[in-house]
Amino acid sequence: MAQQGRGRAGRGATDGDPADTRYIVGVDLGGTNIVFGAMTVDGTRQFAMHTVPTHAELGADGVVGRIVEGVERVIAETRATTGAARERFLGVGIGSPGPLDRERGIVIVTPNLGWRDFPLRDRVQDGVKLPATLDNDANCATLGEWWIGAAKGARHVVGLTIGTGIGGGLILDGKLYHGASDVAGEPGHATIDSTGRRCKCGNYGCLEAYASGPAIAERAREALAGGEPSILPQMVGGDLARITAATIYDAAQQLDALSVQVVRDTARFLGTGIANLLNIFNPEVVVLAGGVTQAGEALFEPLRAEVRRRAFKPAVDACRIVPGILEGNAGVVGAVGTFAQWHGLM
Amino acid sequence: MAQQGRGRAGRGATDGDPADTRYIVGVDLGGTNIVFGAMTVDGTRQFAMHTVPTHAELGADGVVGRIVEGVERVIAETRATTGAARERFLGVGIGSPGPLDRERGIVIVTPNLGWRDFPLRDRVQDGVKLPATLDNDANCATLGEWWIGAAKGARHVVGLTIGTGIGGGLILDGKLYHGASDVAGEPGHATIDSTGRRCKCGNYGCLEAYASGPAIAERAREALAGGEPSILPQMVGGDLARITAATIYDAAQQLDALSVQVVRDTARFLGTGIANLLNIFNPEVVVLAGGVTQAGEALFEPLRAEVRRRAFKPAVDACRIVPGILEGNAGVVGAVGTFAQWHGLM
Repeated sequence: MAQQGRGRAGRGATDGDPADTRYIVGVDLGGTNIVFGAMTVDGTRQFAMHTVPTHAELGADGVVGRIVEGVERVIAETRATTGAARERFLGVGIGSPGPLDRERGIVIVTPNLGWRDFPLRDRVQDGVKLPATLDNDANCATLGEWWIGAAKGARHVVGLTIGTGIGGGLILDGKLYHGASDVAGEPGHATIDSTGRRCKCGNYGCLEAYASGPAIAERAREALAGGEPSILPQMVGGDLARITAATIYDAAQQLDALSVQVVRDTARFLGTGIANLLNIFNPEVVVLAGGVTQAGEALFEPLRAEVRRRAFKPAVDACRIVPGILEGNAGVVGAVGTFAQWHGLM
Repeated sequence: MAQQGRGRAGRGATDGDPADTRYIVGVDLGGTNIVFGAMTVDGTRQFAMHTVPTHAELGADGVVGRIVEGVERVIAETRATTGAARERFLGVGIGSPGPLDRERGIVIVTPNLGWRDFPLRDRVQDGVKLPATLDNDANCATLGEWWIGAAKGARHVVGLTIGTGIGGGLILDGKLYHGASDVAGEPGHATIDSTGRRCKCGNYGCLEAYASGPAIAERAREALAGGEPSILPQMVGGDLARITAATIYDAAQQLDALSVQVVRDTARFLGTGIANLLNIFNPEVVVLAGGVTQAGEALFEPLRAEVRRRAFKPAVDACRIVPGILEGNAGVVGAVGTFAQWHGLM
């Protein structure tokens, strides 16, 4: 049996496809890209992981078409690798930007895609003729890291995905926690400064208004406007709008004082928000993922110090704060996982 | 059979003691008082509710003696009312100030009682010759309101007990949530203002530093020191140290402008902290209990407005924010409930 397409998590212990192996397809829908892949129900093997552009401009019908096409490609490639019959594919787990209604399978609103009350689950289900489930993308990323990633084996986990926004997910007693109406797990929109920066959500002082990628860039621009010297302007050819969190991390590595301070402030803001989560949830692991975490220890070290300064010692002692290890695949792995949890297979 | 001692929740449907009725004793230990009582396992009837002073100055052994005595009194009175045999008393649920270790039944530290690493559960168990369980007092109060009080029937509940401090409890999927090391549920020590008031816990800007009883009094004193006119000084005979949250509520009812503002600010701080909990947990009910909530709608109305202003609409729409209805009995009812949950009886 061919080896190509065998996922990174493949152990190589099993060649071919034992008759009882079952597969689930995962879809991680984003405003820019869609990530696809299949996994065995036990989470040990991955197949046909691939990414395609979303082309949101095609509208909901066009994007559904692309999802159905991607799922069929995953099934075909996985079957070519394993020889599995189509009946062994149990269904499709979909991760989508929210808010959404899991029970009815409906995306309530996604600003990035321009959808409202769209029955994404049933449309995909009808297209691929397999059962599907729908969950929030940040929930999926957290579940992925818990299932086979940086938080594996922990009972209580908080996941934060820090990019354009700050998404979150909660694993409590080994299950994704959704709350009363599927909007639980938004620590990016908890206030850390009640009279602070206005957030896009309408609230003041949200963590996201300080520590998302765009907020980090904005704080650097504010410092530049105050006249502080920095290499940042020359790094972006004088066009300050081009400054991103990544630019700032690069500059901080070159010991640009302004950028070093921006990274430290970011760590302080994130540390405040995470300390709150420790005092409320007492998790075993906090997993941070997304572009903003790529500063590595320059971010994590002062972040952990801020958490120690603010949270209760027994909560600090019980908790590891770590970067995610699945990178771009956390969402699709977790989408598979949400299907498995929904159907009681995990 | 005598009617006295029949609890408020008694339905009057059953006279006497059907042979299958089982009872649990509850103990709510505080720094000032201990509340005792018994309940039927199904939560429908209460017996022998009573309060005695703790006399913390007697030390741990002395207080354990008073607890054992109180439990025996509850059993004797309940038996006198119902005719139940002693074997029908399954055990004792104890609510205690924390942090504590439920698994080992140990109180790790209670500043109000001066205890450290005290094996309270086993000492009570040995004294009354019945199994006992130990849980945090604010957890118990939340469970009580969920079991037979203001949050009855809800799946996800946040409870806040606001007095000298701000304690909290979380009911998730109908179970008390304890976290990795039994310190979950301390939203009083989540930061609402990262550079704000120093809290007794060492952190800055905790909700408790703004909205506990003593913090409310302190904010009023600060406003008085700023020269604002008020009837407060004459209400306390010029001794500003005697101002409490209750004094301020009285003055606000008499339309004292300074006090009205202090109550509104309290509502705003609590609203900020509670909005955070809505965006993180998406609960069906937030129950507020404790002396500070006695301002009634003067507090709840602006508090709910602040929550609406800050939290996501689907989370706001899903949630009722209500005062507790069990008053001083929430803790002892919940202590009975924690014993029942621990033993899988609920």
